[in-house]
Amino acid sequence: MALIVQKFGGTSVADIEKIKNVAAKAIREKNAGNEVVVVLSAMAGETDRLIALAHQAAESPDEREYDSLISTGEHVTITLLSIVLNSMGHRARSFLGFQAKILTDKAHKKARITLIDTKEIKKELKKGTIVVIAGFQGVDENNNITTLGRGGSDTSAVALAAVLKADRCDIFTDVDGVYTTDPDICSKARRLNKISYDEMLEMAMTGAKVLQPRSVEMAKKYNVPVYVKSTFSDEGGTLVTKEDKEMEREVLSGITYDRDQAKITVVHVPDQPGVAASLFTPLSEHNISVDMIIQNASAEGFTDLTFTVSKKEMKEAQKIVNTTAKAIGAKKVEVDDDVAKISIIGVGMVSHSGVAAKMFKTLSNESINIMMISTSEIKISCIIKRKYTELAVTALHDAFGLEKKK
Amino acid sequence: MALIVQKFGGTSVADIEKIKNVAAKAIREKNAGNEVVVVLSAMAGETDRLIALAHQAAESPDEREYDSLISTGEHVTITLLSIVLNSMGHRARSFLGFQAKILTDKAHKKARITLIDTKEIKKELKKGTIVVIAGFQGVDENNNITTLGRGGSDTSAVALAAVLKADRCDIFTDVDGVYTTDPDICSKARRLNKISYDEMLEMAMTGAKVLQPRSVEMAKKYNVPVYVKSTFSDEGGTLVTKEDKEMEREVLSGITYDRDQAKITVVHVPDQPGVAASLFTPLSEHNISVDMIIQNASAEGFTDLTFTVSKKEMKEAQKIVNTTAKAIGAKKVEVDDDVAKISIIGVGMVSHSGVAAKMFKTLSNESINIMMISTSEIKISCIIKRKYTELAVTALHDAFGLEKKK
Repeated sequence: MALIVQKFGGTSVADIEKIKNVAAKAIREKNAGNEVVVVLSAMAGETDRLIALAHQAAESPDEREYDSLISTGEHVTITLLSIVLNSMGHRARSFLGFQAKILTDKAHKKARITLIDTKEIKKELKKGTIVVIAGFQGVDENNNITTLGRGGSDTSAVALAAVLKADRCDIFTDVDGVYTTDPDICSKARRLNKISYDEMLEMAMTGAKVLQPRSVEMAKKYNVPVYVKSTFSDEGGTLVTKEDKEMEREVLSGITYDRDQAKITVVHVPDQPGVAASLFTPLSEHNISVDMIIQNASAEGFTDLTFTVSKKEMKEAQKIVNTTAKAIGAKKVEVDDDVAKISIIGVGMVSHSGVAAKMFKTLSNESINIMMISTSEIKISCIIKRKYTELAVTALHDAFGLEKKK
Repeated sequence: MALIVQKFGGTSVADIEKIKNVAAKAIREKNAGNEVVVVLSAMAGETDRLIALAHQAAESPDEREYDSLISTGEHVTITLLSIVLNSMGHRARSFLGFQAKILTDKAHKKARITLIDTKEIKKELKKGTIVVIAGFQGVDENNNITTLGRGGSDTSAVALAAVLKADRCDIFTDVDGVYTTDPDICSKARRLNKISYDEMLEMAMTGAKVLQPRSVEMAKKYNVPVYVKSTFSDEGGTLVTKEDKEMEREVLSGITYDRDQAKITVVHVPDQPGVAASLFTPLSEHNISVDMIIQNASAEGFTDLTFTVSKKEMKEAQKIVNTTAKAIGAKKVEVDDDVAKISIIGVGMVSHSGVAAKMFKTLSNESINIMMISTSEIKISCIIKRKYTELAVTALHDAFGLEKKK
């Protein structure tokens, strides 16, 4: 007997018919003799509807109340699934965050799970109950409802799989696995059978939307085997797991892109200690995340400083930087949101040389200018003009031969 | 400084604009120096939508899951109101059943409040917080969500007013008070300034929809002054309170009707001990409430037995009674759902004679046949043909001079 955690996203529970399909998948695992925990998202579109309501009520909604409000989407789906399962003769019980005792810190809208008291869940599993748990939500120590941020249900599922020592965590979604790149813009994209935690994390952080980055971190930390599968087909699937020899033989696992990028350049900054700190401290104080940062070599005591932020924070960042730029005697501030970030990811990079050179050459062959570069051990990212996104992804996919499994 | 509990029904919180109007009413009490607790229903129509979803999921939804699902309507309104209040500069916090520690028994769909632990609520009131509490819901001792039945938010409000020893419980609704009868069918209906708990209870139980009967029982038990007011106007209002001399001077307070009635007659029943028990025990085992029961005088060892049930339970009741009727040797079972119950209510009945006679004569003057009669100390009810409902109400309103306050 194994313990299986199944997580279903919003499109998988979009209406009662789809919820019945989810019930069938849970029952199949149950009938195979397994203990089953199901974690659900809200119906597709419901969380957005609730967020819109909150913003109709106030421009900046109180965060405690906002979290409580937007947690109702999952409340609806878990009770509906439990109603369906019970009516089909399978004992099922829904658990909200406070009922499952999913404790988090107090950081509303992006809370982190600190503890899950699994006593009640285990008691129900022993009885043969299918346990249905609301994703995305928890409670802090004072019983305030918190939410885990966009895609937080993935994290709920992996966290539950970790504390329950599940044999497997199946993430059901509307695609049938993790691809070498987005099949919508590159027809040659290939589904991966396996990918390492680190690669999956880099892909999730650089634009792949299939899993919330934090869920991958947690899977890695607790060594939870995660399967990404389609709700609507039994074919395919990708296993996210520990790195193995086979993975290292491949140079790249995937190519991602992120069009939600804006580039800000502070021109002709006096090159002296403390300048970077005085630029970035006010941004972090306003909770603006800076992604790539590049400082050009100094010429005659002056330098240019370029960094990227998410597009929707560009306006606010620009305002803040303008003020600082004046104070530190920079010449001007330039912004550009007509850009995209293209990243190539692979654990094989460590042992294969010339990967970066090949990336730059491929882009240059297509006459695509590289505006910024940043690298990590298993990732290289370039900022390019937005209109070249598709061209760059397709060319790199070809150049690195990702179409065929080696 | 007084403590005021304000309860708003579904039409009062139907959209964000209306919720802002509710916020204004709460703030007015707060600014007058009072402590304010607000209890809300779900947006108009939302509970029905959730019930429909549950029945789409299963014919007989699991009751634990059903209760949890339909509790989300109030979850949405309390957080939205709290968002509005906070954005207007007034500290507000929403409390769900489990957060407000509203404990109930385990009777899903019609739970009774057993205990409210007011510690958290009082702590927030001390801070000057406007406390916004979800009506209709509670939790049992195992943290399962329960609901209090249709109109249960009235009961939540009165229960909170009782345990918090509130100075007043204002029930805001879409009418401006309690009327001598339904103004929709009798244009001469007059708003009452005051009504006793007992009269209000009889009116609520015989068809007036303005308050849930259980909330009136509770108000009486704990002597909570309840004001029924309009959300949309500052005029009017009715105080539900202890009986006083003034009330006794009036013969009647109100006239109600209930068209949700069906009459079942078991014809030619052998008149022997135990017959009534064998008829009504199976009905109560199926949770069918029987309202009026009349047994005619026995003739030659046989009698007719007539009783009423709510219209939607008629079919099921008929099936059950048919079986019993055969077993006890009755001739046949007749059903009639083309009926209505007309009731006249008033504490003055106790000291005024001839009230019943006047009622019967008034109906007879209009050629309305009375099919069944039942009485209590302060109420007389008659079953008549449904089509005479409006005529009967209007004629009785005139005959007892309810239009003018004496």
